[in-house]
Amino acid sequence: MLKRRLFTPGPVPVPERVRLAMAREMIHHRAADFLPIFQHCKVGLQRIFQTAEPVLIFSSSGTGAMDASVSNLLSPGDHALVVRGGKFGERWAEICEAYGVRATCIDVEWGTAVDPARVRDALAEHDDIKAVYVTASETSTGVRHPIREIAEIVRERDDRLIVVDAITAVGVYELPVDAWGLDVVVSGSQKAFMMPPGLAFMALSERARRFHQSARCAHYYFDLGKEIKALDGDQTAWTPAVSLLFGLEEALRIILDEVGLEETWRRTERLAHATRESMRALGLELYAPDDPSPALTAVRVPDGIDGPALRKRLKDELGYTVADGQGAAKGKIFRIAHLGYFDRFDTIGAIAAVEMALASLGFSFKLGEGVRTATELLRD
Amino acid sequence: MLKRRLFTPGPVPVPERVRLAMAREMIHHRAADFLPIFQHCKVGLQRIFQTAEPVLIFSSSGTGAMDASVSNLLSPGDHALVVRGGKFGERWAEICEAYGVRATCIDVEWGTAVDPARVRDALAEHDDIKAVYVTASETSTGVRHPIREIAEIVRERDDRLIVVDAITAVGVYELPVDAWGLDVVVSGSQKAFMMPPGLAFMALSERARRFHQSARCAHYYFDLGKEIKALDGDQTAWTPAVSLLFGLEEALRIILDEVGLEETWRRTERLAHATRESMRALGLELYAPDDPSPALTAVRVPDGIDGPALRKRLKDELGYTVADGQGAAKGKIFRIAHLGYFDRFDTIGAIAAVEMALASLGFSFKLGEGVRTATELLRD
Repeated sequence: MLKRRLFTPGPVPVPERVRLAMAREMIHHRAADFLPIFQHCKVGLQRIFQTAEPVLIFSSSGTGAMDASVSNLLSPGDHALVVRGGKFGERWAEICEAYGVRATCIDVEWGTAVDPARVRDALAEHDDIKAVYVTASETSTGVRHPIREIAEIVRERDDRLIVVDAITAVGVYELPVDAWGLDVVVSGSQKAFMMPPGLAFMALSERARRFHQSARCAHYYFDLGKEIKALDGDQTAWTPAVSLLFGLEEALRIILDEVGLEETWRRTERLAHATRESMRALGLELYAPDDPSPALTAVRVPDGIDGPALRKRLKDELGYTVADGQGAAKGKIFRIAHLGYFDRFDTIGAIAAVEMALASLGFSFKLGEGVRTATELLRD
Repeated sequence: MLKRRLFTPGPVPVPERVRLAMAREMIHHRAADFLPIFQHCKVGLQRIFQTAEPVLIFSSSGTGAMDASVSNLLSPGDHALVVRGGKFGERWAEICEAYGVRATCIDVEWGTAVDPARVRDALAEHDDIKAVYVTASETSTGVRHPIREIAEIVRERDDRLIVVDAITAVGVYELPVDAWGLDVVVSGSQKAFMMPPGLAFMALSERARRFHQSARCAHYYFDLGKEIKALDGDQTAWTPAVSLLFGLEEALRIILDEVGLEETWRRTERLAHATRESMRALGLELYAPDDPSPALTAVRVPDGIDGPALRKRLKDELGYTVADGQGAAKGKIFRIAHLGYFDRFDTIGAIAAVEMALASLGFSFKLGEGVRTATELLRD
């Protein structure tokens, strides 16, 4: 009997209640019985994004909302600043290039967070930057970037935007959209929302909505103007992924009304902290030791151990699916998720599996030190 | 006890087996256990599109695939021909405009099909047209356009594309992509596929793939090149809507392996025919009497009856959700679906409900003539 357990930083496990909510009979998205479901989602998203501004819902992956954050806010030839310290920072630069936006990139060593002073310097050097694209939690490296500090710098002027990929940050830790003056914050359903992939979300400040009105990059499916207007009537511009919205309503109920948002942040941080300490107790090195995101822990594959073999043993023999590294970190790290529907016993199990896999591959360490460390840290 | 029944031409009812398939536990879309599911979907889509060419899967509504059919195939300033005889024909023109493609439109009276000679004349007049955008089944009017004849005209030259919105045609009636030489054919999950909304599909000829390579309209999320490459490895470029793919695999199994594609076309056509005849038996007029699509039947609200009141009575008192008209036909017609998970008893019930609603609103006719007609036509 091999039980399968999903520990990737998205998709994450989906609670049974959410999965069954998605199995309800289909209804029409323009009919009156859909409106209260949509309204619950709309208000719940504002709560989880900590904003009074509209939060748009797209039927797409998170990348779709990232696309819209360029194509709907800027014009060809506009100048943008991109913080690039992982695969998702790179994506901002690729999207800018696709739409003819000139991107000046701050390249940050993978596994480290950007120094906000570099953002200040770049903005001072380039007077014409209209938008700063950053990643809150860089899922490819496990790094948490200092969004609050960057936002303060961007906010020194009123004529530029801060746009945040918070795909593995919203619902993971505190990232208050309004209080920090963030203009655009993007997330996706298969992360802290404990949902399948297929929905993307975007909080949008009044300033960003003004930028949209003068933006001239080409776009059609992703159209913030159409979506804002539709949202006023509790609709989306195009046919929404109705069954996923059934699930979202239920997931938001669990997160916001039953568990609580602050408790969700606290739980995720505790799981992340315990995992980091347990990996250290095994003699493993973290990929992002100084600025870890609580969404996931990225662990260096130790010398002498083959990364793919480690993940294969975890998956095929122990039932645990953890993520490989991406891009430059492929094969060199493995990544364990904490965001979403995980509790301390899930996490202790995953640590035990890592220990067993390492032991069977001949890595030298004191078996049980990881789970002992985690059990102590997660006791109460 | 008021049972609710969905009779809109998308979303349509989803079979319980498909809904429960979507409720299975989440797995990772890059892991080996997802590959066979994706492969089944990929091959099944080729069968239902009747093509040996790749059929791409997007996480979006059908409009997303329509967007990609312009933004990924043409360049700003290119010249396109659009057949515009309803809301979805209008959408092709809007998308062209959004991407700076010059669209020459053939305006067709709503409720009628385009005369292929007009396409021939327009192509003769405009030597530089690179793509012809048409709608197979115009859901807003209930019209079926002569795609085969149009394709023959377009195919007289090899340097231009025929792009077909077949959102309510694929799986509804025969529309063989390869045999008719169609370059791009688009559909969506919430139609004949008996699925919730959230997935769009696109079959793509070798010629269309060549066009993509030189197309310069801006795009990122929708990227045919990235998707074709990913499809080769049984993947999508971005994280797919995994739970919807669980459902798609099951829905394709029902349509292709259990019911059969030809039987599905035959059933849909019979339901449509019986509905049209039963409406005539009630003294009602069809909106598309000469060129009806079997996907749905659009019926004119008779003089003296209020369209919204009729639909409200059907919904609130009888439990039947039918569609209003769209655009110019709003309030003037109602639309009953046949595509997807409907059988003859579902259809007879819907006809009975229409009769009861009309009678209660004071319309003068012989009650029961509709269901009698349908029962005769659907007897064996």
